[in-house]
Amino acid sequence: MKISPDCIVCLFQQALRTSKLATEDEGLQRKILTRVANEIAQLEEETIPIEVAGRIQELVGELTGVTDPYQDAKRRYNDLALKLYPRLKELLEGAEDPLLTAIRLAIAGNIIDFGLGSEFDLEQVIQESLTREFSIFDYEFFLEKLAAAESLLYIGDNTGEIVFDKLLIEELLRRGKQVTYVVRGGSAINDATLEDARYVGMEKIVRVITTGTAIPGTILKDASSDFVTHFQTADLIIAKGQGNFEGLDDEPGPITFLLKAKCTLIANELGVEPGAMVLYLKPGIKESGFIDNNN
Amino acid sequence: MKISPDCIVCLFQQALRTSKLATEDEGLQRKILTRVANEIAQLEEETIPIEVAGRIQELVGELTGVTDPYQDAKRRYNDLALKLYPRLKELLEGAEDPLLTAIRLAIAGNIIDFGLGSEFDLEQVIQESLTREFSIFDYEFFLEKLAAAESLLYIGDNTGEIVFDKLLIEELLRRGKQVTYVVRGGSAINDATLEDARYVGMEKIVRVITTGTAIPGTILKDASSDFVTHFQTADLIIAKGQGNFEGLDDEPGPITFLLKAKCTLIANELGVEPGAMVLYLKPGIKESGFIDNNN
Repeated sequence: MKISPDCIVCLFQQALRTSKLATEDEGLQRKILTRVANEIAQLEEETIPIEVAGRIQELVGELTGVTDPYQDAKRRYNDLALKLYPRLKELLEGAEDPLLTAIRLAIAGNIIDFGLGSEFDLEQVIQESLTREFSIFDYEFFLEKLAAAESLLYIGDNTGEIVFDKLLIEELLRRGKQVTYVVRGGSAINDATLEDARYVGMEKIVRVITTGTAIPGTILKDASSDFVTHFQTADLIIAKGQGNFEGLDDEPGPITFLLKAKCTLIANELGVEPGAMVLYLKPGIKESGFIDNNN
Repeated sequence: MKISPDCIVCLFQQALRTSKLATEDEGLQRKILTRVANEIAQLEEETIPIEVAGRIQELVGELTGVTDPYQDAKRRYNDLALKLYPRLKELLEGAEDPLLTAIRLAIAGNIIDFGLGSEFDLEQVIQESLTREFSIFDYEFFLEKLAAAESLLYIGDNTGEIVFDKLLIEELLRRGKQVTYVVRGGSAINDATLEDARYVGMEKIVRVITTGTAIPGTILKDASSDFVTHFQTADLIIAKGQGNFEGLDDEPGPITFLLKAKCTLIANELGVEPGAMVLYLKPGIKESGFIDNNN
């Protein structure tokens, strides 16, 4: 997904939020925004918003010395989600279709996104995610791919959300799948890193690798060769959230995007209403017979 | 008022709104925002937000050929206010203190500001402005200055609002004052220009001049010498709205600022809550004995 005019405004909002978390010095905040403006002024046609988001955090680090302004918030949301975990686990055990319920919860977890800056009520989000109709629902197709898959690559997104991912991954492990979980290669807004995977116990149940980059999404051209190898050889990929969709929507599948379309532009790209729940399975090369770059 | 980090985000929001009004071409919109980023990257320390706002509209004109994207909106709000005029005139005639009621209405008119992008209910705004307590209320001081003043310079702000200004000016004329009304020197967001002064009949009741600049506020260093002469020789100045406050708050008085503090930063500058109604009379050199640059 290329940067739209709306993305530019959104990136400045994010830069302002991140700056304010990193420093109270208005002069420094302004300097950061000015430097961001300089980056935006030189944008290349094909730049993806998450690349700029990564650069913003880099600039904040360079100018304030604070490389992880969301550290406290990330811990807080991991803790909040960990506290909910036992109750959600129970809920799953009683579910008619535990896999689908786990998918719904994993999408609920995707709401925990400070990148968007709005308040939310997690309990309400969970209730809504359990009952709301999907706007894209490739579940049958997903079950079919899952049945044939041995190795799964699960690309995570935010802190807090990572605990919800763990519930879905436990469900996948119970079905005998081999899962590798992916976190960001460095601090990027509130996204989960190795530290968070360790903190929530993800490392105890599956192998955890990183994308190799400190951006709030996944872009193959910049990712580590280790990640790319995993990406290319996995039988099925699950990618959470908007940041991963932004960077991977033009890549050949098989990728299952699980997300809530929080941003209007991503909703438009997917042909759904803002706020829609999405389980979108993008077919791979083998299935569609060609590399589908337009969907 | 210097540009704060928050102003930078606000200016990009404004650039996006103006771009979308001027063209549906996303490529062009993005080009405009990129050029705005280039301006922001090179900001001088002392630049005032309204200067950048003026430059944004200039850029939109250069890149799209549309020099007045708010033309339709401006006409619509002039018409809306003109339709209300007879009823407001009646209201004034029955008022206990017609001057104060006219001031309240003039502030109500100040809500009509597309620069902020939010919806509003004009009727409700009028009711609120008639009853809400002022957060700064230098009315006695204003009456004193007014009694001694022969010539008044009234610096307008937005379209629509200009009709509300007319009510207050008629009240001032009734008291035997000589009033000169000031509009912007060219299209600047939804601000009133000579065309609007003509359209609402302001030219029929007072002399109308312009600031000489196409920015949504007043900055003496850039204004025409004709305007500056009027500014320096008027016995009393009335300046409407945030854009005039931004540019004139460091100038020596006597200036009466009439505004609703719509933006948090301006509210902070004035020491009031956002949304507050303000009648703030800044003393002149003669009164205070020195040029007060800090308030």
